[in-house]
This record gives sequence, C-alpha cells and structure tokens, in this order.
Amino acid sequence: VTDSYAPPVQRLVTELSKLPGIGNRTAQRLAFHVLRASTQDASALAQAIIEVKEKIGLCEVCFNLTDERRCRICEDPRRDHALICVVEEPSDVIPMERTHEYRGVYHVLGGALSPIDGVDPEDLKIEQLLARVTSAGQADVGPGVAVREVVLATNPTTTGEATALHIAQELRARAPGLTVTRLASGLPVGSDLEYADEVTLGKALAGRRAV
Amino acid sequence: VTDSYAPPVQRLVTELSKLPGIGNRTAQRLAFHVLRASTQDASALAQAIIEVKEKIGLCEVCFNLTDERRCRICEDPRRDHALICVVEEPSDVIPMERTHEYRGVYHVLGGALSPIDGVDPEDLKIEQLLARVTSAGQADVGPGVAVREVVLATNPTTTGEATALHIAQELRARAPGLTVTRLASGLPVGSDLEYADEVTLGKALAGRRAV
Repeated sequence: VTDSYAPPVQRLVTELSKLPGIGNRTAQRLAFHVLRASTQDASALAQAIIEVKEKIGLCEVCFNLTDERRCRICEDPRRDHALICVVEEPSDVIPMERTHEYRGVYHVLGGALSPIDGVDPEDLKIEQLLARVTSAGQADVGPGVAVREVVLATNPTTTGEATALHIAQELRARAPGLTVTRLASGLPVGSDLEYADEVTLGKALAGRRAV
Repeated sequence: VTDSYAPPVQRLVTELSKLPGIGNRTAQRLAFHVLRASTQDASALAQAIIEVKEKIGLCEVCFNLTDERRCRICEDPRRDHALICVVEEPSDVIPMERTHEYRGVYHVLGGALSPIDGVDPEDLKIEQLLARVTSAGQADVGPGVAVREVVLATNPTTTGEATALHIAQELRARAPGLTVTRLASGLPVGSDLEYADEVTLGKALAGRRAV
C-alpha cells in the first residue's frame, strides 16, 4: 500500500499545512493546484514568498510593514503627525485606512499584552511609542511635531483592552498633557439588537450619546 | 489614504489569492503569516513549490505523479498488474490505497469528459489506457502481463459517469475478453437513510444485494 505521494509532493503538502487554517486536505488540494499550474505561475508564487522576506521590514518610526526605511504613511507630509493611532498588527492599519476618516499616523505594537502567552510590555513596541510621544521635535524618532493625541485602537478583546489600559497609564505618567482616547465599543452598524451579545450591548449602553 | 500594502506584500497577496479556495482575506492572513515566519520556514515553502515543479512528472505507464520515470506502484512487483483501476486525478489514488483493499495498479486519466468545458476523449489518457490493455505483453507500455480486469473508479458525478460509460464502450470494442467493472454507488457507511438524497438512495436500491 502506497498511501503517500512522491517525496517532493509530500514535502510541499507538509510545508503548506504549516500555514494557519490550512489542514492536510486543503494542503493536498493546494499542492495539486501547484502541480497543475504552469511553471511560470508556480515560480511567481515562490518568488513572491522569497521577495517578501527579503524586501519587507518594519518602518523605523511606526513599525508598520515597509520596503523602505520609513513607511509611506510616516513619509507623507499631508498626514497629521501630531495624531497617532496605536494598533496591534500591521494588518490593522488597512481597515483603519479604509474608513477614510483617519488622517493621522500609526504605531504598530506587534501584538497585545498576554502574560499567559509570555507577551510582556517589553515584547511590544510600547517603549518606542513613549519615545515618539515624549521626544517630539527630535526628527530622528518622529516627524518633528509635538504629538497631540494618541488613539488606542487595539482590539476590543481581553488582551487588547489590557494593552490599551497599560499604555494609557504609561502615557499619563510620561506625557501628562497628551490626549489619550480609545475606539468606541458598541453595536456594529447594520446589526440587530436581538442578536447582540450582552457585553457589547452593555458597552453600547455605557457609551450612549445625546442625539 | 493608503489602503494597500507595500508592493512586495501586495504581490504575495495577489499570488496567494490565485490558489483555489483562497480569497483575498485569507491570502492576506497567509501573507502576514509568511512575514512573521522565520526566513528559513518561508524559504522552505518557496523551495518546496519550485522543487515540486522541477522534479514531479507523470508516470510513463499510469500517469500518476512520480519523481522517477515510473511511479512506485507501477514498479512494485507485488502488485497485481493484471488489474487496473481507472481514476480521474492523481489525488484519487491515495483514498483508493487507504482502503487497503486494492492490490492492482492504476491508470490516471487527468480529468473527466466534459464537452461543455472542452474536455474531449483525446484530452484524457484514454488512448493510453486502451494501449495498455490491448498491448499486454509489450514491456514498453506495461508490466508484461495480460490485463484481466479494469475497475472504472471515476467520480459518481455526471462527468465521471459519462467518462466511465465512454471508456467501457471503448474497452468492450477493443478488448472483448476483458472484465470491466464500476465502483458501487449507494449509501455511505455511517450515513442516515433520512438524509440520503433520492439519487443516491435510488442507486442503493438498484444495487441491492442478497444477504
């Protein structure tokens, strides 16, 4: 009984199944797709993987992904460099940008505090955020403008909330004049009260606004 | 507003989203995983993709995937080379092997007949199957033994059934003495009659056996 593929196929299945959310069956399906694809398409994928590792690093100011020393947002003079939005991951920048409501810059923490997973404040770019906020006017760590407001846009999860709380405390201690805000929690637009979970509904109630 | 990633990231997302069943959001998630992964892990994946295209070809006898001229099943003298199981794709060989019930060899068609998609008999390895069956004893196309039985194990779908029917007709015309069989259709083991679709249940009834 030969219940495995030839070694190169098996190796590709193994590597593909290391990707998040890709089980063995999906990895097999993807591997067969690669086998059927043209050599050109397959090498475009392989090349894209190699290139992304070679060329992409973190912005020296905000730690977003970039193929330069500083990302395009930090380099953009039309952005409000006195307003910093703090997010957990580089992937959180895109949804913020899609709102078309935000004109400030970012600070990417690289995760959220989670002592249980061994993620402590020094594992995130928190000290670098404090440096950006307190050393305003020093062009080597920022745009040379005094930071006016920090929006804490970590996820509305236990770890995200803990991270926001920790950073808010640090910012209050180190930069007393600074405005520190947090994204509102509440009912998603288009959702139904009937199906809202009690925590979200509680947050929506606590954050109610005059109309 | 910067609602796209740096070009190398965007390129990887584009290439990943060409994979079957991988949408844009999943492609982004996979791209970020590659970015977070070690350079070693990322290049192992890229290398596996390149290697599979370089090293894997089709077995000259059965058209299964192989990294040699002939696949391991065709080269195995303990296999019954007089019994050929005809499947649509290389990925269909593994489930057959997992049954531990099949000791013959295979013939991989490379698809199923589907005139609507432009897949005609000459696009599949049907002529090669007929050659294997009729030229038994010629060592250059087979194991040198006369084929006794061909099991048609194409999928129980419209195209798979049409393919099985077409091949059965060809085999009857070209190799009159040959036994040609088809996998049984019926209720999956462990399933519930209540939820069986009427076509499957009809097949199960038509194929009922004395107990």
